[in-house]
Amino acid sequence: MLLPWSETAPRLVDVAMGRTPADLVIRNGKWVNVYSGEIVPHTDIAITAGRFAYVGPDAGHTIGDKTTVVNAEGRYLVPGLCDGHMHVESGLVTVTEFARAVIPHGTTTMFIDPHEIANVLGLFGVRLMNEEAQSLPINVLVQVPSCVPSAPGLETAGAQLSADDVREALAWPNIIGLGEMMNFPGVAANDAKMVAEIAATQAAGLTVGGHYASPDLGRAFHAYVAGGPADDHEGTTVEDAIARVRQGMRAMLRLGSAWYDVAAQIKAITERGIDPRNFILCTDDSHSGTLVNDGHMNRVVRHAIAQGLKPVTAIQMATLNTAQHFGMERELGSIAPGRRADLIITSDLASLPVEMVFARGKLLARDGALATDMPAYAYPDSAKNTVKLGKKLVAEDFDIAAPAAREVKVRVIGVVENQAPTKALVRQLPVAHGIVGMDRSNDVCQIALVERHKATGEVVNAFVSGFGYTKDCAMASTVAHDSHHIIVVGTNKADMAKAANRLQQVGGGIVMISEGEELALVELPVAGLMSDERAELVAVKAGRLVEAMRACGCQLNNAYMQHSLLALVVIPELRISDKGLVDVTKFEKTDVIITN
Amino acid sequence: MLLPWSETAPRLVDVAMGRTPADLVIRNGKWVNVYSGEIVPHTDIAITAGRFAYVGPDAGHTIGDKTTVVNAEGRYLVPGLCDGHMHVESGLVTVTEFARAVIPHGTTTMFIDPHEIANVLGLFGVRLMNEEAQSLPINVLVQVPSCVPSAPGLETAGAQLSADDVREALAWPNIIGLGEMMNFPGVAANDAKMVAEIAATQAAGLTVGGHYASPDLGRAFHAYVAGGPADDHEGTTVEDAIARVRQGMRAMLRLGSAWYDVAAQIKAITERGIDPRNFILCTDDSHSGTLVNDGHMNRVVRHAIAQGLKPVTAIQMATLNTAQHFGMERELGSIAPGRRADLIITSDLASLPVEMVFARGKLLARDGALATDMPAYAYPDSAKNTVKLGKKLVAEDFDIAAPAAREVKVRVIGVVENQAPTKALVRQLPVAHGIVGMDRSNDVCQIALVERHKATGEVVNAFVSGFGYTKDCAMASTVAHDSHHIIVVGTNKADMAKAANRLQQVGGGIVMISEGEELALVELPVAGLMSDERAELVAVKAGRLVEAMRACGCQLNNAYMQHSLLALVVIPELRISDKGLVDVTKFEKTDVIITN
Repeated sequence: MLLPWSETAPRLVDVAMGRTPADLVIRNGKWVNVYSGEIVPHTDIAITAGRFAYVGPDAGHTIGDKTTVVNAEGRYLVPGLCDGHMHVESGLVTVTEFARAVIPHGTTTMFIDPHEIANVLGLFGVRLMNEEAQSLPINVLVQVPSCVPSAPGLETAGAQLSADDVREALAWPNIIGLGEMMNFPGVAANDAKMVAEIAATQAAGLTVGGHYASPDLGRAFHAYVAGGPADDHEGTTVEDAIARVRQGMRAMLRLGSAWYDVAAQIKAITERGIDPRNFILCTDDSHSGTLVNDGHMNRVVRHAIAQGLKPVTAIQMATLNTAQHFGMERELGSIAPGRRADLIITSDLASLPVEMVFARGKLLARDGALATDMPAYAYPDSAKNTVKLGKKLVAEDFDIAAPAAREVKVRVIGVVENQAPTKALVRQLPVAHGIVGMDRSNDVCQIALVERHKATGEVVNAFVSGFGYTKDCAMASTVAHDSHHIIVVGTNKADMAKAANRLQQVGGGIVMISEGEELALVELPVAGLMSDERAELVAVKAGRLVEAMRACGCQLNNAYMQHSLLALVVIPELRISDKGLVDVTKFEKTDVIITN
Repeated sequence: MLLPWSETAPRLVDVAMGRTPADLVIRNGKWVNVYSGEIVPHTDIAITAGRFAYVGPDAGHTIGDKTTVVNAEGRYLVPGLCDGHMHVESGLVTVTEFARAVIPHGTTTMFIDPHEIANVLGLFGVRLMNEEAQSLPINVLVQVPSCVPSAPGLETAGAQLSADDVREALAWPNIIGLGEMMNFPGVAANDAKMVAEIAATQAAGLTVGGHYASPDLGRAFHAYVAGGPADDHEGTTVEDAIARVRQGMRAMLRLGSAWYDVAAQIKAITERGIDPRNFILCTDDSHSGTLVNDGHMNRVVRHAIAQGLKPVTAIQMATLNTAQHFGMERELGSIAPGRRADLIITSDLASLPVEMVFARGKLLARDGALATDMPAYAYPDSAKNTVKLGKKLVAEDFDIAAPAAREVKVRVIGVVENQAPTKALVRQLPVAHGIVGMDRSNDVCQIALVERHKATGEVVNAFVSGFGYTKDCAMASTVAHDSHHIIVVGTNKADMAKAANRLQQVGGGIVMISEGEELALVELPVAGLMSDERAELVAVKAGRLVEAMRACGCQLNNAYMQHSLLALVVIPELRISDKGLVDVTKFEKTDVIITN
């Protein structure tokens, strides 16, 4: 176990003085010094008790018989990379498996907001992920989700967190602050719950995460800042980034699997000359495929450098700046005495090949492969059997009764490729036997929100367009942001019923059924959100799912992501929730069938 | 009273939204943005409840009938200046009087280490100054002195602070960390008290102040850093500054009344290109004369700019960098929403005339004059009657008995102008009637350390050279770093006795007597260290003292400062303490008379 610096100091001092040998000495590296902004050649590092004891020109005096000595051979010594804002659940894997996937990429610190699991399991889910986080050999600091449910009144999540719950969790070990405050209108309106959560976080001396997802930089933005959030990762333009930094927030620039917000905003530094110290790099959401194939924070740093940033500056944005923001600068984010001995050895600062990864002085990965054993964290059964439909669904559960005999006008959720917002479409649909039919030739099929937390048996039905399914098929997912019921999209009601039933059977996941056959399945037994299998395997299964969607006619990019976002009743225009169809331009329920 | 941001947020939000009018609006300024490093023209600021509520292009919507509106007329809006490390006692005035003196210079935050009063009154003295600090309209954050006494075993101070005392005080309100850890050999040696104090500070999440007063940048330096101190203001060379920053310490660059450490070290930034974010400006020690005539942090910032630093960078080093170091960045050090509304209006960034000073939204000074009432803090009698000699001294108390009949060889403390270190000189002195005589023609006179805390009646006698006194005279001071007994230097023993007795009579201070006449007196009734009069008056009295010393033949610069440092038994080579003459090259007592 890692002891605090305060308890390790005498041993660090003894090593620095040469009175006690170090555990590990790394010799002859180029020290990427994020404090001074320099590259300092010919640097030795002595490590003991998981912390840096000496960083300087010659650690020879710290080497004893049992000291492990690594020759860096002139390569760069870079602080372990930090992800300033992310959700583990987006990888569809547990924290442990996420860590296994990203450690070889050089990530040694993650600031995570477990708000997906909180929507399913409440504080219990946050506690589990925080416990798992603390079992890992890297630093996973946890934020308490601020907005569970995301849209009170418009949806019923599996659980909710009250301001008292948040206050309670803020006192737990390993908690670093409040998760992204997504209810930005609530902050500007002094919503009592939001005010109480922010105040509790500030009073605890912790960091309030922000989420200001609006292009409006006027009064509402200024009021949001005055309300207390200390960072924001929702900026997309250079003006967004500059505005946030000027107001004393950290601009978190995001490169996730589907977020590309670094290139535009980094121009604040490269073109406008803004001081880079208040910029932080993060991923927000990474799919397992991205983690397995492309990388994690190394991908973001590389990308930032490719945009013209000095390598040391980009590295500061993924190390020191992040640590400083969360009040952890004396603990991590640099290679300096007393800090946790988290570092990467790389032979090139721009392309950033991650050749060795150490965390707390232990070698964790080498040449892209994990070099340590990391036992799986055992989630209890109570975190696993979360898919409760209350009955076996049948095709008729997806019938939409028609008020007219021949044809009806309906509201249809219009999916837009590569965009989170949807369109509120209107379509004419046929009626037969009192039931509204689909219109496959015009790409209108059904979507259903199946309640899965409390076994109410409720099914909310509506229409969706844009997936392009051409076959009899249905896809169902228990990843259904943010309330995480089941979203079923299908052209065939029997397949829809089968898909939903299948997810109940496996305890959650994503499944594609066509003509009664299961084409692909990603089991996500933990809260219906996370696999307990390896990220590599999940990536393969997710790949099969995309193939199955293609085979059924869906050519959308990131199609299962699009699918999972259709219940996100905080982003316009039209969404579905357990309460019905929701007009997110007005934040109110609306009807599927247009009667006038 | 200023409420925390967490309790004021709803009101700040209301003002930002235009729902509630601001208390004060400052219009049309150039925003010196220490976060982005920019100057942002045409900026309005709205302030309420002592905090910034809105900073942006137009605060018109925040103005109500009762809002005070100030037109900045295009002048610069600069965050209130912060002094990152200083001792109030060096100004010979109380915290209140110090604040009165520096507010018109734009200082709105001071990080103070009351280690002088601690040596006289112990924890009680620290508590008083911390209480006074909290009564002020500016931010005075207090460090708990770490080394009281400075040199245990070599001196007896008026009080001592144990590690338990330090731990107790760390929990008080307004305490920001541990005062400068001067016992750097103790840190490298894992001295139990030093280890305990640093650990307690780290465990409390507070900042450990450093003081590494050695040119050795080898193992001892690295060990000191590993031991935990987070900053250092004792560097003098560019290599010192770079070494500190590389190791993750803050390099505090000092321009005090007698410290000139900015020019050399700032080259780390201006010539070596080191990232400036980890540099902080401070004064350490300012005499009242400097405060009254030259300025305070504005003088330091101006000086830094004159060395070639960009004005915004210099201002960052006296605002944001300082606040960030002490974990107070969300509270002060910038003009940004939520922070304390501390700012200066100035028409020029390089020469920095301080035209208006606001703290917590109140106008405190205008055009160099205080614009507010600041009542004196009433120190209790128990803090005042601290000069206890135990008897009335007579000339014979200063006799030094001679072992030989005619002439003796003695060790003499050699004062060096403008330097803290002394020289260990050896001189031949005449003997008459069994008493060693002085040698005015060769500038050798007597020095005595008169015990004044416990009325033991002890007088330690020795010789000093360098003041150049040509008349019968004596100067005595209860400011006698760091144990603050009485140091008397004189050419005439009757004058020496009279000087010491006079200080007992007035409860402490500095006095010059010549031929039985009092030439000058600065009364310092609070702990024998601080006047309770105005800084202007103290500066005048101190000026008279310098004149009196000149009149007696002493032409040294800062002569009374030199005088007060002669008992500082942590700086080589030769000093005097209540234990005797101390060889500070060996940290051991030595004899005045050389017998072999």
